[in-house]
Amino acid sequence: MNDNNGPRLALTPGEPAGIGPDLVVLLAASGRLPPDIVIIADPALLSDRAGQLGLHIQLSEYHPNKAPLPGKIPVLPVTLRDKISPGAPRAANAAYVLETLDAACRGCLDGSFAGMVTGPLHKGIINDAGIRFSGHTEYLADRCNVEHTVMLLTDGNLRVALMTTHLPLRDVAAAIIAQQLEITIRILHQDLQRWFDLDAPRICVLGLNPHAGEGGHLGREEIDIIMPVIDALRREGLALSGPVPADTAFTPAARERYDAVLAMYHDQGLPVLKATGFGHTVNITLGLPIIRTSVDHGTALDIAGTGQADPGSLLCAVSTAMKMAGRRVGTAQ
Amino acid sequence: MNDNNGPRLALTPGEPAGIGPDLVVLLAASGRLPPDIVIIADPALLSDRAGQLGLHIQLSEYHPNKAPLPGKIPVLPVTLRDKISPGAPRAANAAYVLETLDAACRGCLDGSFAGMVTGPLHKGIINDAGIRFSGHTEYLADRCNVEHTVMLLTDGNLRVALMTTHLPLRDVAAAIIAQQLEITIRILHQDLQRWFDLDAPRICVLGLNPHAGEGGHLGREEIDIIMPVIDALRREGLALSGPVPADTAFTPAARERYDAVLAMYHDQGLPVLKATGFGHTVNITLGLPIIRTSVDHGTALDIAGTGQADPGSLLCAVSTAMKMAGRRVGTAQ
Repeated sequence: MNDNNGPRLALTPGEPAGIGPDLVVLLAASGRLPPDIVIIADPALLSDRAGQLGLHIQLSEYHPNKAPLPGKIPVLPVTLRDKISPGAPRAANAAYVLETLDAACRGCLDGSFAGMVTGPLHKGIINDAGIRFSGHTEYLADRCNVEHTVMLLTDGNLRVALMTTHLPLRDVAAAIIAQQLEITIRILHQDLQRWFDLDAPRICVLGLNPHAGEGGHLGREEIDIIMPVIDALRREGLALSGPVPADTAFTPAARERYDAVLAMYHDQGLPVLKATGFGHTVNITLGLPIIRTSVDHGTALDIAGTGQADPGSLLCAVSTAMKMAGRRVGTAQ
Repeated sequence: MNDNNGPRLALTPGEPAGIGPDLVVLLAASGRLPPDIVIIADPALLSDRAGQLGLHIQLSEYHPNKAPLPGKIPVLPVTLRDKISPGAPRAANAAYVLETLDAACRGCLDGSFAGMVTGPLHKGIINDAGIRFSGHTEYLADRCNVEHTVMLLTDGNLRVALMTTHLPLRDVAAAIIAQQLEITIRILHQDLQRWFDLDAPRICVLGLNPHAGEGGHLGREEIDIIMPVIDALRREGLALSGPVPADTAFTPAARERYDAVLAMYHDQGLPVLKATGFGHTVNITLGLPIIRTSVDHGTALDIAGTGQADPGSLLCAVSTAMKMAGRRVGTAQ
């Protein structure tokens, strides 16, 4: 049953032809899905996928005011629009995928859910359906009426936030704008306080250029943009270091000094996290009024329905969301 | 004595007011300097620094045809131009620093030395002396009459080479030019064969953009430049992978598959190396006709003469050069 009678976490498995349903089934069948989770999906999809994997799971329809039945996975049903073959996404199901997100997000906003955990979806197929869609994060920001979000990745130990995310490298320098940087640092600071129990989070802000610009010899963004923003926010009391050269910020000694590292761009921060993370990293969207964590991998269409998918990242995403929600990390009953 | 009667390694301590002389003294006094090393420096500088550190070392003048005296450090003397206070470089000694490099490089080229290991120097003070100088690597390339070199860093396990080095991030994308990339990969391939005993080195070429451009959605350099170069060199038989996204190239599983990773720029490759290296990384210059390794740190003027400098990186640079030269890595007699 629901451990503390508080709201439960919503889990959207994402693209129904991808490995998302496999991961849910694998966790459910092995008793690793915590009891406080509600799956938002077509129950037939989950049952069918379990059958394809040769696994047995029991589902029950989710009711907000009823405790989950022991051993049964609560499902908030959303109906698929078209049939599913693992590995072959269909545009007709794009509306289904978005409906699961809408249900989760709405429930988080109205307090029915404590947060949401998202499986991998397929941007291309949603766009093929004629729906402009650039990703989970942007979609949820829009649903939550929020302008700025920050992507934070963690392996449970190291936390890396990104100032810019999926930009061609050629466009990164021009995107380092003082106002954006200030908003990003404020969101990171506030959400580290809010969700991670850190009173005075210590944030390491990386430089943009090699050696953090080496006093202007290797680029001026540190002097012209990053340092003034850091100085202004320090005067407000934020515990900021930087701009720190990226190749000195992640040494074991340096890591002890920071609660989070703000990288200026994707490949400055994430290779370290993936190299040193113990297998699984979790993607957290900061800046939303709700808790949202996500797997760090894609739909892996080539192995959907085979049972080869590794549910480790999804399990970490669930644990992280539960910790953020101040909930006990349970195991299945 | 000289273990195999072959040529010895030359070691240039670099800036005399920096920690270079400290490191040599610390290694010599603790018996960790292999016997096949010749220090190219002012003997008085080494003796004085030893005195400042309260350590005792014995020096002897290097003669190419004489075996080193047991327990004495062979020194090829070069005379300082001005007196030295640790922590306070003087422009008058720039000529001294360059003379030590010239002697080492000349000896490598004429076969007197098996290779050279360089301590940290201070670019600024050499430029202050009115000598145009952009770094060890460029200086040695010029002395060796070589146009293209490649910077390779290693922690003894992971090897990371750089397509571009000390460029502002804003200029990186424009520097990814097919001809340069081809030359870089050829040098990396040949020198991995030549110095690292790898018959068919497996090289992982990173993409420039996040997710290696994601099929052109996040930048086109992979499609327009990197893939054609990889394809052409693969047809010649080179064992190349890529373009690989930087955040998947360094996972423990991926590392097993490659002998070296070619990063497109500084902060794409080096943060991982510094984060996971066990304390000390070595900088190797590929493309020269000689062996040259270097420490991965600077002159640390603030701790010169205090004994606090860590000789670990210098020791790794010496061991790496000895391995490259096919010499046994000995310890002091």
